[in-house]
Amino acid sequence: MVTDTGMVNAFVEGAAELDAATAAMIADRKKLLGPAYRLFYQRPVHFVRGEGAWLYDPEGNAYLDAYNNVTSIGHCHPKVVEAVSRQMATLTTNTRYLHDSVLRYADRLLATMPEGIGHFMFTCTGSDANDLAVRIAQSYTGGQGIIVTETAYHGITQTVAAFSPSLGENVPLGAHVRTVPAPDSYRSATGDVGAEFAAGVQAAIRDLQRHGIKPALFICDGIFSSDGVFDGPAGFLKGAVEAIRVAGGIYIADEVQSGFGRTGDAMWGFQRHGVVPDLVTMGKPMGNGYPVAGVAGRPEVLAEFGRKARYFNTFGGNAVAAEAAMAVLEAIQSEGLVENARETGRYLKDGIQALASLHPCIGDVRGAGLFLGVEIVSDRVAKTPDAAMTTRIVNGLRDERVLISACAKAANVLKIRPPLIFTRDQADILVERLDRVLSRCA
Amino acid sequence: MVTDTGMVNAFVEGAAELDAATAAMIADRKKLLGPAYRLFYQRPVHFVRGEGAWLYDPEGNAYLDAYNNVTSIGHCHPKVVEAVSRQMATLTTNTRYLHDSVLRYADRLLATMPEGIGHFMFTCTGSDANDLAVRIAQSYTGGQGIIVTETAYHGITQTVAAFSPSLGENVPLGAHVRTVPAPDSYRSATGDVGAEFAAGVQAAIRDLQRHGIKPALFICDGIFSSDGVFDGPAGFLKGAVEAIRVAGGIYIADEVQSGFGRTGDAMWGFQRHGVVPDLVTMGKPMGNGYPVAGVAGRPEVLAEFGRKARYFNTFGGNAVAAEAAMAVLEAIQSEGLVENARETGRYLKDGIQALASLHPCIGDVRGAGLFLGVEIVSDRVAKTPDAAMTTRIVNGLRDERVLISACAKAANVLKIRPPLIFTRDQADILVERLDRVLSRCA
Repeated sequence: MVTDTGMVNAFVEGAAELDAATAAMIADRKKLLGPAYRLFYQRPVHFVRGEGAWLYDPEGNAYLDAYNNVTSIGHCHPKVVEAVSRQMATLTTNTRYLHDSVLRYADRLLATMPEGIGHFMFTCTGSDANDLAVRIAQSYTGGQGIIVTETAYHGITQTVAAFSPSLGENVPLGAHVRTVPAPDSYRSATGDVGAEFAAGVQAAIRDLQRHGIKPALFICDGIFSSDGVFDGPAGFLKGAVEAIRVAGGIYIADEVQSGFGRTGDAMWGFQRHGVVPDLVTMGKPMGNGYPVAGVAGRPEVLAEFGRKARYFNTFGGNAVAAEAAMAVLEAIQSEGLVENARETGRYLKDGIQALASLHPCIGDVRGAGLFLGVEIVSDRVAKTPDAAMTTRIVNGLRDERVLISACAKAANVLKIRPPLIFTRDQADILVERLDRVLSRCA
Repeated sequence: MVTDTGMVNAFVEGAAELDAATAAMIADRKKLLGPAYRLFYQRPVHFVRGEGAWLYDPEGNAYLDAYNNVTSIGHCHPKVVEAVSRQMATLTTNTRYLHDSVLRYADRLLATMPEGIGHFMFTCTGSDANDLAVRIAQSYTGGQGIIVTETAYHGITQTVAAFSPSLGENVPLGAHVRTVPAPDSYRSATGDVGAEFAAGVQAAIRDLQRHGIKPALFICDGIFSSDGVFDGPAGFLKGAVEAIRVAGGIYIADEVQSGFGRTGDAMWGFQRHGVVPDLVTMGKPMGNGYPVAGVAGRPEVLAEFGRKARYFNTFGGNAVAAEAAMAVLEAIQSEGLVENARETGRYLKDGIQALASLHPCIGDVRGAGLFLGVEIVSDRVAKTPDAAMTTRIVNGLRDERVLISACAKAANVLKIRPPLIFTRDQADILVERLDRVLSRCA
């Protein structure tokens, strides 16, 4: 269900009967935190503990977490707990003093990037990272114009909310922002997703220019997670990236969703498209629960901004953040989690694909690694989005104690994003319960 | 020394001879982190460990920390380390699920606020908090105009940087921003600081209106920390707050610097002025090294924004953040740290005041609790700011292993901000070494 604020899978009062404890907590939230907070699900869930791919409610019931991408290497990964506990007890100072953790981390992170990306800057959240990237892009290009996909989400600072159309119509887009259709492989008119997508970006560039606005940047999430999860065909980003560069703007890869091995074929989502960004932003899974984020970029793009504007983020790049992030990167690499995302992701995708023959509401199964999108339609030929059915499935799975959510402009794509440590057994559980829910919902 | 980016106490290459290890780390920072990062001091310091009011370099030398206000209850406070370690190992999920820590914290935090402040929203950084506060203020008032003091610092998102004049001339102020002179008790022309300050705000309001810009908000830091530390006379904020409200705008108290007991007379800096803000923002010391921040506010101010715009901050209000913040609030209250800030702050202020009779460069000693400002002048009668002497003192103290910094438009005010656990013995050390440095620098 999409609420008045455009949020998919939001709790809406009165949509379902609630137990007394849940109702009381919701009342407390309203009283203490006020009206801006939203919960997931028709019957919100209360968690008290997490471990690996599992979350537990106060009664000890286990929920299979196939959604939370902050805890990407598993809830409460012991190496991250150890790193944070140790460094919290040792030193928490910031980048105005010398400290080697930030340098060791930047060095190791940059080693995962393509040639040409030479600097790394620490922020605290993905929103911060995108906000900083915009400031850098506008300084470097001298332009203001921003191009995003039409259901994109990039963050919640005022600057970034102004180019995050998925926040809904009550959060206006900036006058310098243009949206383009997502690279929709399921509904492509010509079959050439890349050409269609590039044409959209070119049209947006012309429209900006027609209004006297110089394009500064094109930004997209490497897996188009809010637009509906579009992963292929690989390479479809090339034309769009070329177009923005020809217009004097830069390409920012928002890897908050698709980074750190999520897509299974590489460390970064943009890599599957064979493009090298000017700036790369990252966040959520970087510290597996500890707040840390950042921007990597080409030195020539950062040069003028750095010289003129300086940048200090009190919490960004503190010693604990760097140690937490190092523990995560180390775990991804030493535990073979990119490979697991690829292998288990393929296994899970095959399992869901097999359900399509049984359940006609499954219009398309797509995604890369452990980020899958399942398009729910009421008519396979017309490809008619079915948001109501999608809501029933998401809430049905919640009742079966499996956590997923939904996305897309029409709110009809299941968003399945398990931790990178997901196992085949856990994939089996997910597929089995999804099968049950689909049978019940039909 | 003020650099090209307007930063006080920034490291400038070539200003002093560096040892090989320091030079190598600085070269690594430039290579890996790029040009936007700045260090403190002519000879930057490398820390590896912190405990209480002390920081230690790799050789084991102890530095008395009279500057870092993130670690406000002391470096590596065991209760905070314990809370973060425990919760990191238990659960780190966000506010889209029910969790009681955020509610317990909001309840306890709101109990420290004056009547009328009824909601609390979690963010991750003080910049986030001010960015959110602007969005709320503009939504509530329908205005855009922002009034700040002329050397204010409120944060580093694009929106907030546009009203943070202390970032220097290379970061332009927004067309909707007006600056007013700080409430300078040392150079007041009439002796009525409050009336002068209110007149400045009224003039800014008229100028905004003359340009067709409706005032949305007046924001100030409760101790004017970047402007030069202005604490009194108590009550001087009243006229300014009245003026912005008459113009249809709101008053935002930025308590990132002055909050959580820092000023010694109350939990919040605004309280000494007998005013009740519409929104209160807070950050740095809230988690004593763990990234957590927030906005408290009047329910009627938050109502429309919350209903229309929703707000989700992935890391803001995660379970660990709430537990860290709870441990800090608990320590401030159970260890009597507000009282200690008042008592030890007065003792330290008296000690520095006593140095004024020996050292004519001390023009004024001011501040509240454990946030002191010492104005350095070359001529006491003319009150001529002496930035060069200020730099020598700050760096001289660093060589004596005492950490402070400097601030103010003319970069001539020593900024002394020890942790709230500071003892009389530590105050004695600071005064004794400051005396030595002042003798040497004169």
